Amino acid sequence: MKLGRLNHVGVATPSIADSIAHYEATMGASVTMEPFDLPAQGVKVCFVDTPNSQIELIEPLGENSPIHKFLEKNPLGGQHHLCFEVPDIEEARAWFEGIGKRILGPTRTGAHGTPIFFLHPKDMEGVLTEIMESPKQAH
Amino acid sequence: MKLGRLNHVGVATPSIADSIAHYEATMGASVTMEPFDLPAQGVKVCFVDTPNSQIELIEPLGENSPIHKFLEKNPLGGQHHLCFEVPDIEEARAWFEGIGKRILGPTRTGAHGTPIFFLHPKDMEGVLTEIMESPKQAH
Repeated sequence: MKLGRLNHVGVATPSIADSIAHYEATMGASVTMEPFDLPAQGVKVCFVDTPNSQIELIEPLGENSPIHKFLEKNPLGGQHHLCFEVPDIEEARAWFEGIGKRILGPTRTGAHGTPIFFLHPKDMEGVLTEIMESPKQAH
Repeated sequence: MKLGRLNHVGVATPSIADSIAHYEATMGASVTMEPFDLPAQGVKVCFVDTPNSQIELIEPLGENSPIHKFLEKNPLGGQHHLCFEVPDIEEARAWFEGIGKRILGPTRTGAHGTPIFFLHPKDMEGVLTEIMESPKQAH
């Protein structure tokens, strides 16, 4: 295991539309993509590009969205998770399992279309951590 | 204002030493710098490099450290702030003041030796936001 790129910081929001307006008007971002639904994760998603990384805006999708609880505690939204890239998701999963870290659910397809899994924040110094296989092509 | 580099994600920890061990043993980071005290901010600091950004580990320094409260609520630690770069700190300060965002205290020297200030999370969609002038030399 070698620490990979910080692919994105996941930021929960009660309204992706409002957050896009915030990142554009306040922070000077240029958001060129349309938000999209990721039903497998129970979230609506939009990426905001920085020159070196991304902010992943996530809004609850459906009643069972895993971020409802987060927004109850943080009604304005806030930092939700960190996502690091790895070259091979299966190898990474075996690595974290081997050292006894709790993995939250199966490996599944993430917002960038590559396989991902999440690690329990209690095993990761309080940080909900997403591990993502790097896209095969540069992005 | 144009959205700049995500210089770092600030992660609070009750023990920088333990966190360095975690990032090295669990995440495969190579931490080459020694932690240092930043008395002006009331924190001890160490940077963990990812290929494209950094994690800033912060541990309370002194009784009045502003992160004591955060650690009371989050005893394991966790994501504390996001830091974005700007080319000119005074211009950025005037920009955020002009649009009515609350700035927390004076502009001061940050962990990278360049001027920084913080924006109130309630004005920034729940994200405590650090604005940092880019170092003059590439890093």
